[in-house]
Amino acid sequence: MAERIVIVGSGNVAEAMAVALTQAGTPPEQIFARNAETGGAIARKCGCAYAGEAAQLAPADLYIIAVSDNAVAKVAGGLDFGDAVVAHTAGSVGMDVLPAKIKNRAVFYPLQTFSKGRTVDLKPVPLMLEAETAKGRETVESVAMRLSDSVLWVDSQRRSRIHLAAVFVSNFANYMYSAGESLVAEAGVSFDILKPLITETAAKAVAAASPKLTQTGPAVRNDFQTKAMHVEMLMEKPNLKNLYINISQNIWETSKKM
Amino acid sequence: MAERIVIVGSGNVAEAMAVALTQAGTPPEQIFARNAETGGAIARKCGCAYAGEAAQLAPADLYIIAVSDNAVAKVAGGLDFGDAVVAHTAGSVGMDVLPAKIKNRAVFYPLQTFSKGRTVDLKPVPLMLEAETAKGRETVESVAMRLSDSVLWVDSQRRSRIHLAAVFVSNFANYMYSAGESLVAEAGVSFDILKPLITETAAKAVAAASPKLTQTGPAVRNDFQTKAMHVEMLMEKPNLKNLYINISQNIWETSKKM
Repeated sequence: MAERIVIVGSGNVAEAMAVALTQAGTPPEQIFARNAETGGAIARKCGCAYAGEAAQLAPADLYIIAVSDNAVAKVAGGLDFGDAVVAHTAGSVGMDVLPAKIKNRAVFYPLQTFSKGRTVDLKPVPLMLEAETAKGRETVESVAMRLSDSVLWVDSQRRSRIHLAAVFVSNFANYMYSAGESLVAEAGVSFDILKPLITETAAKAVAAASPKLTQTGPAVRNDFQTKAMHVEMLMEKPNLKNLYINISQNIWETSKKM
Repeated sequence: MAERIVIVGSGNVAEAMAVALTQAGTPPEQIFARNAETGGAIARKCGCAYAGEAAQLAPADLYIIAVSDNAVAKVAGGLDFGDAVVAHTAGSVGMDVLPAKIKNRAVFYPLQTFSKGRTVDLKPVPLMLEAETAKGRETVESVAMRLSDSVLWVDSQRRSRIHLAAVFVSNFANYMYSAGESLVAEAGVSFDILKPLITETAAKAVAAASPKLTQTGPAVRNDFQTKAMHVEMLMEKPNLKNLYINISQNIWETSKKM
């Protein structure tokens, strides 16, 4: 119940984890991070200790390594965790990027996008767990169930596929917003004008059993006339023109398979 | 103030317009539509008349032709509107698709996605107006300001560009949700798992001045390692693989211009 938890890292995921643990009534023992400014700020927010030197790492039952995917191996390799459970929070890398000398390796991956300055409620966020020992399984599950109503066991291979899906629905959807912004800018209006549409499109998909059921527009209707006009309008933007053609084609093919 | 309004059509836009007018205390005089079932249902919802034969078209000050973009010309061509103002609601076609015999042609375009069974509050939705006579301008503006807090004058050329932007932020973002669904399905999990991420991605962009500021992921970081792994995972899905490469490239190029 009262595991001692240390958060390693001071980025957006580290902050979200530390804040969620604090709100759940079990603040971390320590924020351990190179960056004293961002690490110290999270520690103050959670009323816990901060440290930045390997020798100062606090004893704990669970270390959550919340650093960028490519930094997990290096950061974890430089610290001594004793017999504790060590979980990384990365979607795209396997549990085995944690050094083999760690006795209880695990993964604690929140399927969400975290940004500076935005507080995210973890309760509805899926937490995807993996662990190689019984001790690891018990520890990460106990902590995860305190933070989220959606806890799943997902191995590294499935997790990397889910992470790829997240790139499509989050990073790539956001790029579509950017493309829209550049097009309305040419019509002399600001991105603001697209916001009610962005909100409703997401709300509609989330209310549906499948986004295929909420697909609208010229592509799913196979409206040649409108599509040809759009391609013509994008003639001087070859990147957007190619995307327009490819995505429209994919929408049409996906709709035929329904 | 008390214009008599007839809605022509019985699709999602027609229904949204009729309901919004009713909620504003000025229900339409009549729903005029071929389809007696859907047209009659809207009329009952709004406590107004329904008609489906050209000879039964009620006299009005404003006719709103809320039919699909490619049907505007044909539907409007078959009716006699007298001296009234006639506005279509289509984003992708010009005001001039309305027959030239109409004395007061106009456009009344709501920048939103409408679906059966979803009630949309029009208040925050941009209504984009165009009119070729003073009478037309006064009429559509008076009605629009009653329904929306965001009323803009936009000519046909700018409107078609904004409509194209809407295709990107709505139809294409929704396709990204579909692509994500197909990828998580292969990992044995349902689309539900992506919903908190979809909601937060849209909320974050809407809270920002520009979606470029909320772009995250391997593409904007130019994380070669993760991108190479993702492309490898998409080898047997050439459509998604090509999209992945092209969108990632566009994200990187867009970020460099900031």
